[in-house]
Amino acid sequence: MASSLRSQPRITDVAALAGVSTSTASKALNDTGQLREETRERVRRAAEQLGFTPDSRGRALSSGRSFTVGLITTDSSGRFSIPIMLGAEDALSAGEMALVLCDTRDDPLREQHYLKSLVSRRVDGIIVTGRRTEPRAPIDVPIPVIYAFSPSTDPDDTSVIVDDHGGAGSAVRHLLSLGRSKIAYVTGPDSHHSARVRAAATIEAAGDAFAGEPLHGEWSERWGRHAVDVLLRAQPAVDAIACGSDQIARGVCDRLRELSRSVPDDIAVTGYDNWSVMALASRPPLTTVDMELEELGRRTANLLLDAIAGSAHPGPMELPTRLITRESTLGT
Amino acid sequence: MASSLRSQPRITDVAALAGVSTSTASKALNDTGQLREETRERVRRAAEQLGFTPDSRGRALSSGRSFTVGLITTDSSGRFSIPIMLGAEDALSAGEMALVLCDTRDDPLREQHYLKSLVSRRVDGIIVTGRRTEPRAPIDVPIPVIYAFSPSTDPDDTSVIVDDHGGAGSAVRHLLSLGRSKIAYVTGPDSHHSARVRAAATIEAAGDAFAGEPLHGEWSERWGRHAVDVLLRAQPAVDAIACGSDQIARGVCDRLRELSRSVPDDIAVTGYDNWSVMALASRPPLTTVDMELEELGRRTANLLLDAIAGSAHPGPMELPTRLITRESTLGT
Repeated sequence: MASSLRSQPRITDVAALAGVSTSTASKALNDTGQLREETRERVRRAAEQLGFTPDSRGRALSSGRSFTVGLITTDSSGRFSIPIMLGAEDALSAGEMALVLCDTRDDPLREQHYLKSLVSRRVDGIIVTGRRTEPRAPIDVPIPVIYAFSPSTDPDDTSVIVDDHGGAGSAVRHLLSLGRSKIAYVTGPDSHHSARVRAAATIEAAGDAFAGEPLHGEWSERWGRHAVDVLLRAQPAVDAIACGSDQIARGVCDRLRELSRSVPDDIAVTGYDNWSVMALASRPPLTTVDMELEELGRRTANLLLDAIAGSAHPGPMELPTRLITRESTLGT
Repeated sequence: MASSLRSQPRITDVAALAGVSTSTASKALNDTGQLREETRERVRRAAEQLGFTPDSRGRALSSGRSFTVGLITTDSSGRFSIPIMLGAEDALSAGEMALVLCDTRDDPLREQHYLKSLVSRRVDGIIVTGRRTEPRAPIDVPIPVIYAFSPSTDPDDTSVIVDDHGGAGSAVRHLLSLGRSKIAYVTGPDSHHSARVRAAATIEAAGDAFAGEPLHGEWSERWGRHAVDVLLRAQPAVDAIACGSDQIARGVCDRLRELSRSVPDDIAVTGYDNWSVMALASRPPLTTVDMELEELGRRTANLLLDAIAGSAHPGPMELPTRLITRESTLGT
């Protein structure tokens, strides 16, 4: 039966059933005032019997807090912001905080509208996230804000970001530890901050084992396939291809297989993202770098809870990535 | 500069700057009471100058509404619930309603906890969604609830669902219109409602053109590749393979290419989902069925707004899918 027509029990119903005044019922349920334990217990039983739920908006108004956090995202595809959001929601719900979702769809006017609405709702804090690692302009609101994944351009703001330099380096060190000595790099557009940072870290970590120049293209399987042809003409002796994303790495593996080059026996391949639909479906499955975005979301939420409680941690904070090793470097 | 330390202007600051009493300032900003237009205008200018934002919680308490909707999802991977959520958020934000995200991670205890919390926050309504099209047990709360994608087992509840029967049929009718006369079907586990519904619709729409029996396996590219081998042994003359998902269809295309069978010249292939990372990256790109989940989210939100306003539409409501045609049936 649809239950939407039943009305919610009120505190007056609880009071009537318990045979006390409304103010006594309220004190009993809020654990305030001077009451006999027997009275409190009777009120509690009446509340339970009626299925009465206290109105948390009262708690909110009296504490001056709304126990609500806004999450502003520009990332309507959600590849990066969804795990961050789920991690944040997980950490916040443990603290009885609700997460309000605001998807700006990359529209600055929409962002302004959301900010006004969140401030008007007296949210206790705001998380700002996006799909790119480029720093973004800070938002101007009189409540705590934390930036996740996309840092604020203001170095005094709290920004929780991925250590992409360390992540790209970890893949290369893994390849070196397997004895690879001619490592190429295929990645996304060099207009993207993440592509540049990971390429620089790859070159630095590979040292003399770096082969040629980083190959920049689009973040796609198609580019990965095409890059293999470009690469094998220029660097026929390459024994490893590190990639800036799992999509690119999957394309690289597909093309190498079509050319009858064995992965990893002839050429080892690494990806980046640990996006399961790419990394696990790739043939062979990809060794890759997990940015641990859900954990990033949790850390962001906990830092925001600290800031709301009055203890801010200004400045950027880089979180470590995790290397996941699979058949594309280890073989079967 | 981090702006979290600045305090918010209060209504008393606005009143002082405008040279009026607090109650006059409040009336002016809420457009209530009897005031001269000049006074209202002076208060508005003062509010603007100070960057004062009215506290919407007051509006909420006085109206008895919170202007907030909860979204309960069991789908932590988010493949299906994320577009629904974004569509719902889009429709709700246009009506100044906030969407609170509750990810139960398929844990019934977590769901109970969230329901209590949402009721205690006096949300105006709840959207329930999940990753499967199997009907689910209704939730028991004294506010309007709408089920999206995963319908309620109670036929009197409002459930907004995908017309999977029509969707699967549309792919087959497209194949028939192209002259295909031996159509096979490869899909997910027959324990899944969506796999069974789509298979039945495919058989019905294909009629005499249906080849063999539906092949049930997992929702994966690997199963798609394997199914091709099974199928071509049993039905060597097949000229079309309709698939229950884009992942399966992509695997089918990959295996056919490895066997040097041309898609679509020898065998046309259709997918289901229009999941761009599969449908567009497939070689060739997939003709597929889009479930229009974002639109489903929008419709769900609008039905919930109706229900909150007192006008419920009980019962299931099926929304149409959209056939997207690409090279896997049309060629280049």
